[in-house]
Amino acid sequence: MTQSAELTGTRTAAGADTAGQGVDVDLLGGYLLGRWADIRRTARELAATPGLQRIHGQTMAEHRRRVSTQLQYLADHGSVHRAFPARFGGADDPGGNIAGFEELVLADPSLQIKAGVQWGLFGASILHLGTAGHHDKWLPDVLSLRLPGAFAMTETGHGSDVSAIGTTATFDPATDEFVIHTPFRGAWKDYLGNAARDGKAAVVFAQLITPEADHPVNHGVHAFFVPIRDDDGAFLPGVGGEDDGFKGGLNGIDNGRLHFDHVRIPRANLLNRYGDVAADGTYSSPIANPGRRFFTMLGTLVQGRVSLDGAAVAASKAALAIAVGYANERRQFTASPNADEQKLLDYQLHQRRLLTRLATAYAASFAHEELLERFHSVFSGAEDTDADRQDLETLAAALKPLSTWHALDTLQECREACGGAGFLAENRLALLRADLDVYVTFEGDNNVLLQLVAKRLLADYAKEFRKADFGALARWMAAQAADVTLHRTGLRQVVQTVADSGSDKKAANYLKDAGSQRELLTVRVGAMVVQLAGALRGAAKLSPAESAKVFNRHQHELIEAARAHGELLQWEAFTRALEGIRDPGTLEVLTWLRDLFGLGLVEKHLGWYLMNGRLSAQRARTLGPYLNRLLHRLRPHAQDLVDAFGYGPGQLRAAIATGAEELRQQEAMAWARARRASGSAPVPEKYLKARA
Amino acid sequence: MTQSAELTGTRTAAGADTAGQGVDVDLLGGYLLGRWADIRRTARELAATPGLQRIHGQTMAEHRRRVSTQLQYLADHGSVHRAFPARFGGADDPGGNIAGFEELVLADPSLQIKAGVQWGLFGASILHLGTAGHHDKWLPDVLSLRLPGAFAMTETGHGSDVSAIGTTATFDPATDEFVIHTPFRGAWKDYLGNAARDGKAAVVFAQLITPEADHPVNHGVHAFFVPIRDDDGAFLPGVGGEDDGFKGGLNGIDNGRLHFDHVRIPRANLLNRYGDVAADGTYSSPIANPGRRFFTMLGTLVQGRVSLDGAAVAASKAALAIAVGYANERRQFTASPNADEQKLLDYQLHQRRLLTRLATAYAASFAHEELLERFHSVFSGAEDTDADRQDLETLAAALKPLSTWHALDTLQECREACGGAGFLAENRLALLRADLDVYVTFEGDNNVLLQLVAKRLLADYAKEFRKADFGALARWMAAQAADVTLHRTGLRQVVQTVADSGSDKKAANYLKDAGSQRELLTVRVGAMVVQLAGALRGAAKLSPAESAKVFNRHQHELIEAARAHGELLQWEAFTRALEGIRDPGTLEVLTWLRDLFGLGLVEKHLGWYLMNGRLSAQRARTLGPYLNRLLHRLRPHAQDLVDAFGYGPGQLRAAIATGAEELRQQEAMAWARARRASGSAPVPEKYLKARA
Repeated sequence: MTQSAELTGTRTAAGADTAGQGVDVDLLGGYLLGRWADIRRTARELAATPGLQRIHGQTMAEHRRRVSTQLQYLADHGSVHRAFPARFGGADDPGGNIAGFEELVLADPSLQIKAGVQWGLFGASILHLGTAGHHDKWLPDVLSLRLPGAFAMTETGHGSDVSAIGTTATFDPATDEFVIHTPFRGAWKDYLGNAARDGKAAVVFAQLITPEADHPVNHGVHAFFVPIRDDDGAFLPGVGGEDDGFKGGLNGIDNGRLHFDHVRIPRANLLNRYGDVAADGTYSSPIANPGRRFFTMLGTLVQGRVSLDGAAVAASKAALAIAVGYANERRQFTASPNADEQKLLDYQLHQRRLLTRLATAYAASFAHEELLERFHSVFSGAEDTDADRQDLETLAAALKPLSTWHALDTLQECREACGGAGFLAENRLALLRADLDVYVTFEGDNNVLLQLVAKRLLADYAKEFRKADFGALARWMAAQAADVTLHRTGLRQVVQTVADSGSDKKAANYLKDAGSQRELLTVRVGAMVVQLAGALRGAAKLSPAESAKVFNRHQHELIEAARAHGELLQWEAFTRALEGIRDPGTLEVLTWLRDLFGLGLVEKHLGWYLMNGRLSAQRARTLGPYLNRLLHRLRPHAQDLVDAFGYGPGQLRAAIATGAEELRQQEAMAWARARRASGSAPVPEKYLKARA
Repeated sequence: MTQSAELTGTRTAAGADTAGQGVDVDLLGGYLLGRWADIRRTARELAATPGLQRIHGQTMAEHRRRVSTQLQYLADHGSVHRAFPARFGGADDPGGNIAGFEELVLADPSLQIKAGVQWGLFGASILHLGTAGHHDKWLPDVLSLRLPGAFAMTETGHGSDVSAIGTTATFDPATDEFVIHTPFRGAWKDYLGNAARDGKAAVVFAQLITPEADHPVNHGVHAFFVPIRDDDGAFLPGVGGEDDGFKGGLNGIDNGRLHFDHVRIPRANLLNRYGDVAADGTYSSPIANPGRRFFTMLGTLVQGRVSLDGAAVAASKAALAIAVGYANERRQFTASPNADEQKLLDYQLHQRRLLTRLATAYAASFAHEELLERFHSVFSGAEDTDADRQDLETLAAALKPLSTWHALDTLQECREACGGAGFLAENRLALLRADLDVYVTFEGDNNVLLQLVAKRLLADYAKEFRKADFGALARWMAAQAADVTLHRTGLRQVVQTVADSGSDKKAANYLKDAGSQRELLTVRVGAMVVQLAGALRGAAKLSPAESAKVFNRHQHELIEAARAHGELLQWEAFTRALEGIRDPGTLEVLTWLRDLFGLGLVEKHLGWYLMNGRLSAQRARTLGPYLNRLLHRLRPHAQDLVDAFGYGPGQLRAAIATGAEELRQQEAMAWARARRASGSAPVPEKYLKARA
C-alpha cells in the first residue's frame, strides 16, 4: 500500500470518476476501528514495534526464545491484562482486551497465540473456572508471567469431543488430594502451547471421580491447577512430556504433550466455581445437570473463538492491503503495442479475485464488531443471562469458521495475485497463511462448530413448532407443502420468468435491492432448516444409534445450513453498518461493496436458488454481468477501501507494500521514453518486415 | 496408511460388503504406475532414502547445503539424466525422465525443484535451444553438476509476459561479442533457483539486438549462456545479485536475483537453434515469424509444466493416503452411550471432504499419464509436428493449473481433516502444502495458462466456423438461436421435468450414465465457447486497445471456459482409463469413483446447468442424494483406493500413517473394557441421578 498523500487523502481523485464523491478514507477508517478504537491503535503500535515482530528464517529454538521474551514485554507493559479484575492490575474490560489482542496477529501470530495461551486460556480458566482463593493465589503471577502455564484440555485421542477425554482426577479423602492420572497413550495432553518448554503449571481438564458409598462416581470434566515444572525447568515427579516439534506454522510457540502418573495435588487445586468436592468427598455444583454444567464451563472460554474471528479479519485486511496496493502499481502486458502496460487491478479477473474477497473482509469485519460487542455485554455482566450466553456462543460458532477460512483463502489468493513476490517471506503473505492455518481447527474445529450452529437452528425451529397451536400448524404445513409443490414442478420459475419477461434491467433492479438480497439469503437458511427438520423428524423416536445414522445421512446439509446462516449474519451486519454511515460518497461505495458481497453469495449458491425455484433463470443470468459491473464501479475505490483499514508500513511490513513497485514501473517507463526520444531504440524485427 | 496384511491384501474384506468383489489393490496399483512403472518404482526408492529427505526445522542455510549435497547424489547416480542424449550418459527418454522426477516430490520438494532448475531448465534449455557445440561444451558438466546453473528468464518486472523482459543482449561486431545488460531495476532477473549461492553460470533470456544499416533491430527474446561466478563462488565482473531470502516454502533452494552491467560474452554463447547472428551481425532464423519463433522457443520448455502436473498428482495421492488412512483409524464421538466411538471416515461430511478429492486425484492421475505419453511422443520425435506441439502445450496448460490447485486444496483439506495432528511437521501435510504453494504460479501462472487455453478454444471454434459454407453456417446459427430461445424461456426445463415426472430413479439413472455425464460436461464447454465467440465477434475489427477492453470484460468467462475444458479432459481420461480395467470388482468401484468425479463437477457448476436449461430442477435435486449414495458405496473401498497409490512408510513418513492411531484406539478400548470388567468403572453422575 502506497502511503503517499494522493492515496491517503480524505478525498481521492478516484471519486471524481463516479457519480458520487467516493470514499472518505479517514471517516471510514475511524468507523472500522469501532468501539475500542484507542485500544486498537495502541495495539497496532505494538505490532509496529520491531522487537515484537517475527524475524523470518530463525530456527525454532531462536523463534521460541524470541517470543518468550516478547511475552515478558507484553506483561511488563500491561498490554494483555485488560480482561482481568482491576485489583490484579486489569481493567475489567473483556471486549477491549480482545480488540487489542486481535491486532497482535500483525506483530507475529506466534506472539499472539502464545499470549492467548498464557492469559486467554491458562489465566482465563483460573479466572472463570476458579474462585477468589485461586485468583489471589495465582493470578498476580500469571499476569506478570512469573507463572507461565499451559491449558491442558485436548488429548492426543480427543480434541473435538472434550467430554470423552481420558485423564482422570480421582479424589482421595485419606489425603485430601486429587490424583491426576493418564491411563493410556491416547489420553496424553497434546498440542499445548507452553507445554514443551516454558510452562511451570497447567490447568488440566480431567474426569472428576469421587468415591461414593458402593462405587466411584464420575462427575465429568473439571479443571485442575497442576504444577508441572520446578524452577529449573525440570518436570516434577510423575509428570512427563514431549515436544510436538516443528509445525506448519506458529513455530515461536513451544507446543508439547504432557502425561501424569498418579500426580497428587491438594483438593483446593480444583477450580471449583462450577463443581466442588468437600473434604468428605461429597460433590456439589450450582448446576445440577451434568451436561449443562459441562457446556457452561466450556462456554466461559468462548473468548478464544471470538478473538480468532477478529484476528482472522485483521490478517485478511492486511493481506488485501498488500495485494490490492501491489495490483494498483504492478503492470503486465500491453493492450496495444505503444500503450503503457496495464495495471493488474484493471484486469477483470484480478478484480474478481481481490474485490470479492475485499467485500467479504468488510462483511466479516462488521460482523466481528457486533460479536465483540455481544461478548463484552455478557462478560462485563451487562447482559448475562443463560440465553445471552447461548446466543453469544452460537454467534461465535457461526462466525469463527467463516472468517478463519476466509483468511486462509484470502491470504492464498493474495499470495497468488502477487506471483513469485507473494511467495517471498519479505512480503509476508505466505508465512502469515502458514501461521493462520491452524486457526481453522483449534479453539473448535470449524466443521464441528458449524454442526453446533445447525443443531441450534433446528432446536429454535422445533421451539417455534412447539408453540404453534394445531390450527396454525396445519395451515403452516399446508402452505409449506403448496410451496414445495409449486417449486418442484418449476411452475413458479415460469411465472417469475413471465413477470420479468424481456427486462434484464428489471431483473438487475431486483438484485441490487437490499430487500431482495435479504429475502434470498434468509429464505435459503429457512428452507434448508425446514427441509432438515422434516428429514430428521422421526429420528428422535429411534434408538440413539439409529438416530445418529439418520443425522449422519444429512450431515453435509447441516453444515451447509449453518454456513448459510453465518453468511446471512455477515450480510445483516454489513447492512446494519451502512446505517451508521452519513457521508454519501462513502455510503454509495460501501453499498456497492455490500451488494457485491450479498450477490456473490447468491452466485455461489446459484444452483440451490434455481433448483428450489427461488430465482428465475432470467434473473440468474443477469447476476454475472451485474457482478462484473459492480467490480468495474468499485475498482477506482479499491485503494481507498484498503487504505481505510488503517494499516501502515509498520503493520504490513511487505517489501511490495512500500511503493517500490511503483518506483520500478516509473523507472522502466522513463527509460523507455528516454530511449524513444533519443532515436536509439531498436526497431522490433516484425515492424521491419512489415515495412519491407 | 496402515501397511498391515488385512489392508494391503489383494482382496480385502471390505469388498464383501458390496455386490461386487471390491478393488484388486495390486492390479490397480500396477495400472496406476503406468508406462514408466519401473522408473517410478526406482524413484520412489530414492524418495524413501533418508539422505535424500528433508529434515524439518533446519535453518535455510542448512537446508540449502543439504539439498546441494543431495543433488550431487542424484547426479552421481544418474537419476536425473534420462532426458539427455545417450552420448552424454542420458537415455533419450523424455517421458521416463519426467516420471522419475515427479516422484522426487516425496523426498523433498526443494530437492525436486532444485533438480528441475539444474537439469529441467538450465540443462534442458542448453539442450533444446542450443546446438551441438553447446551440447559438447557444457552438457557433460551440467549433467555431473560440475557446472550448476540458473535459468534466468523471469525478471522482477516481468513474469507472465516474458516477451517484454528488459534485459538486452546487444551484438558488438567489433569484438564478436554480445553485451548482456540490465537497463533498470525492474529488469533484474528474479526468483531464480541456483542464483543466490550455487550457480556458476546462467542461461539468460534477453532481447537480442543487432546493429543494422540505419538503426539497431530487436529480434526478440533469445537465450544466452552467461558465466556468473568464479570457482570461489564470487560474482564475475559486471555481474551482481541478491538473495531472495526466506520463502513460504522450498527453502532448500537458493533463489536469488541477478543483474548485468555490460557483461561481454562470446558470440558463440548465443543458444542458436532458433536464431543466430553471423560475425557481420546478420541475424537469421529457421522461423521467419518472430512471434512464432518466440513461442517455439518457449515451447521446448513445456516439460516444466508437464512435470509439475505429475508432481502435484503425486503429492495429492500421498496426502490422501495419509488422511484417509488416519480417518479409517481415528475415532471421535459415540453414536450412543455404550457404543464404540465412530471412525472419522464413517461421517458423511468426512467422506465428502476426502473421497471427492480422491476421485479428482484419480482423474488427474489418469489425465497426467496421457499428458506424459503425449509429451514423450513429441520429445522423442515420434509425433512431432507443429500441431502436435501445440496440442501438447494446450493440454499441459489446461491440466497443470487444475492439478496444482487441486494439490493445494487436497493438502489443506487433508491437514484439516487430521486436526492438530495435521499441523505438525511430523505428519508432513502442512509443510508439503507450503512447498507446493508456488507450483500454482511458477512455470506459467495458472490463470495465465488457462487464458491461453481459452484462446486456443476460441481459435479452434473460429476455424470450424471458417470452414462452414454459408448455408451450413446459417442453418447452424439458426439452430443455435432456436436452442438459446428455448433455454432462455425455460420451456425446455419444463419439458424435461414433465418427461422425468415423478421419477427420481429415472433422474438418477440419467446421472449415472457415462453418456449423460459426457454430454453435460461437453455441452458446457461448447456453449461457453459459442457464447464467448459471440460476445467477442466484433472485437477483432476494433483497435487493439478497444479490442482488449472487450476481451477484458469477458476475462472471467474465458477462465471458466478453460477450466471447464480441463475438467472435461480429466473426465475423459478417467473414462478411457476404465476401459483398460478388466477386473470386474475394480472396475465397479472405479466407475463409482468416476461418477463421483463427473457428477461432482456437475454439482459444482449446477447454477450454470440450471440457468442455461441444460438440467431440469428435478434432475438437479437428485444429484446431492445420489452423490451421498456414491460416497456411502465407496467408503468401504477408500482404504484400497489409497493403498493402490503404492506409497509406503518410506514415502509417506507421517507419524499418523504408521498405524499408531489404531494402536492408541485399541489400547484405549482395551483399557475401558478391562475397567468395565473389573467392576471398578466410575458410574457417570447422570446415570446415578436417573437411578435416584
